[in-house]
Amino acid sequence: MNAIRTDAIVIGAGPVGLYQAFQLGLQEVRVHVVDALPYAGGQCTALYPTKPIYDLPGIVACDGASLTERLLRQLQPLQVPLHLGQVVTQLQRRADTANGGAAPPGDPRFRLQTSAGLVFECDAIVIAAGAGAFLPRKVPLVDLSPWEGDQVRYDEVSPEVWAGHNVVVLGGTASAAECALQIAEGGAAHVTLVHRTDRFDIDAALDERLQSAIGAGWIRLALGQPIGAIAGDDGRLQALEIATADDQRRAVPLDLLLPRLGLSPQLGPIAEWGLALQRKHLPVDTERFATSEPGIFAVGDVNTYPGKRKLIVCGFHEATLAAFAVAQWLRPNERIVLEYTTTSTRLQRLLGVAR
Amino acid sequence: MNAIRTDAIVIGAGPVGLYQAFQLGLQEVRVHVVDALPYAGGQCTALYPTKPIYDLPGIVACDGASLTERLLRQLQPLQVPLHLGQVVTQLQRRADTANGGAAPPGDPRFRLQTSAGLVFECDAIVIAAGAGAFLPRKVPLVDLSPWEGDQVRYDEVSPEVWAGHNVVVLGGTASAAECALQIAEGGAAHVTLVHRTDRFDIDAALDERLQSAIGAGWIRLALGQPIGAIAGDDGRLQALEIATADDQRRAVPLDLLLPRLGLSPQLGPIAEWGLALQRKHLPVDTERFATSEPGIFAVGDVNTYPGKRKLIVCGFHEATLAAFAVAQWLRPNERIVLEYTTTSTRLQRLLGVAR
Repeated sequence: MNAIRTDAIVIGAGPVGLYQAFQLGLQEVRVHVVDALPYAGGQCTALYPTKPIYDLPGIVACDGASLTERLLRQLQPLQVPLHLGQVVTQLQRRADTANGGAAPPGDPRFRLQTSAGLVFECDAIVIAAGAGAFLPRKVPLVDLSPWEGDQVRYDEVSPEVWAGHNVVVLGGTASAAECALQIAEGGAAHVTLVHRTDRFDIDAALDERLQSAIGAGWIRLALGQPIGAIAGDDGRLQALEIATADDQRRAVPLDLLLPRLGLSPQLGPIAEWGLALQRKHLPVDTERFATSEPGIFAVGDVNTYPGKRKLIVCGFHEATLAAFAVAQWLRPNERIVLEYTTTSTRLQRLLGVAR
Repeated sequence: MNAIRTDAIVIGAGPVGLYQAFQLGLQEVRVHVVDALPYAGGQCTALYPTKPIYDLPGIVACDGASLTERLLRQLQPLQVPLHLGQVVTQLQRRADTANGGAAPPGDPRFRLQTSAGLVFECDAIVIAAGAGAFLPRKVPLVDLSPWEGDQVRYDEVSPEVWAGHNVVVLGGTASAAECALQIAEGGAAHVTLVHRTDRFDIDAALDERLQSAIGAGWIRLALGQPIGAIAGDDGRLQALEIATADDQRRAVPLDLLLPRLGLSPQLGPIAEWGLALQRKHLPVDTERFATSEPGIFAVGDVNTYPGKRKLIVCGFHEATLAAFAVAQWLRPNERIVLEYTTTSTRLQRLLGVAR
């Protein structure tokens, strides 16, 4: 696949990442945004889409979903591509790999690859990853890594993967219930739903559908917590071993295991890029919001500096100053001046509101 | 007049000052706001009430007047008193004046007095004064100080002051035109409007009223720029000397001179409080936004630090961190923790939205 050549990549499409893209756009920096979730908004959408936020300046009350919608609308005229549902898995400094030193002029400094196979070449990166990428929570205590991607699937699976098979869905989330129902209603497979209790963290309508599928025998329910994986002589995963509330052990046979334990934020590959870390946060200065690696900046909940408070309003400021710093980094010989959207024809043209 | 005892005073009711009061309210700091203008909003209301701002995060477009209205609405549940139309003229450190050293426990650290005669006693001050207090622009080149407050009035004057007198209104602003019309229509006085040209920086409706008053002879127009003041033997101001476009000199006789040259921001008394200044700005750290004087903080356009950009979004961040710092300053033995308005019952109660 051809690499996408651009000026900057923003990692994270939460509110601060979206506003970062907006501020970079005002600086006429070409930018793409990547996020692990299949939708924009980050924590706002994943954790509190319907809970009001009351302390955004000038916005009396606004829930996470509508904040995201507002920021996307504001970003819209700048036409910034969002690449969702994928994490940045690899980061290479091209200068080093290409010729062991400074990059030839015009050569991109960084090369990034995502889990969906996209490749970006760019000269600046802004990490706005919050608490990390929201990725499926792994099964605790049990090492399933030998079968991940094959018999153990954290991602969406299509009917041909489960058709005719013995499927175990693990979890008490809405996603677990919906997954079990989809397979049960699709037929041609045995479905067992494994969960700690017979109560699920789901809304009434979904619960009713689930209970009737269990009542009709389309979905078997196995109560317990995973404690082991049972493999056959051929190395294939044969069963999930679970412990019940009264401490009985039981093997639940399977061909395919679909853990649906919810999402949890994971700093993931970012922690392995050689950037200085302080207790899982990226230390930055408060002038440029630059990390320890030239050309890589960090804004929002992922960074740390003296006085840091994890508030959206603070991330907006950080993104603003970082945008000036990125523009200066990309155009070292230019004086980056402050212009106001109330008066600057250049900014108003960019935003499509010039008179 | 009895002093008003409170925790903190915010100087400036522009967008950053209003949000500062909001953030202090969330910290349960008792706060009053003082501003020179007779209305809230600072530069936003004085300079661009109807010009849209496009870069406030999550607000696609919003003019200065409606930003102010939004911030006032957000502040409303916290019931912060605004004292408008007055500048802080005096600041005393009580600790020093009272006993030459540390203040007795419970004694207020600061005592402030305003031009309207209000006295505040408090322990913290946040200066959010922008480019300074918006005060009437003085007449350039001519020293009118001997008559200011008496025959030369920059403030609103009531009919008994001008009744029966020979009044000169100076300026090409809407305020100059309205002032001349008010006096002319009120009768019992001769009104001369002095301005550089016969074109005024006013809207069509006001211009029409002005031209018809000039046509009817109710208002005399004198074209020229002030170059001197002519005093009588009794020391009273007798005339304003003006130079016309063709370099003629002319004396315009008067009893009362009302300069209406618009507002200009003046740092004023703040520059005389012994705070460290860098090119008319207050240097602060980026953790607490503290000035060189313990207990005095500065946020928004009035402060400076490495990387400072004069943007409203940056001022909102500064006000947020300054609120934590003020709370910590006032309650040194308490750990000031971060709470979120989405989840904190305490904050939701303060805002009147707890369920």
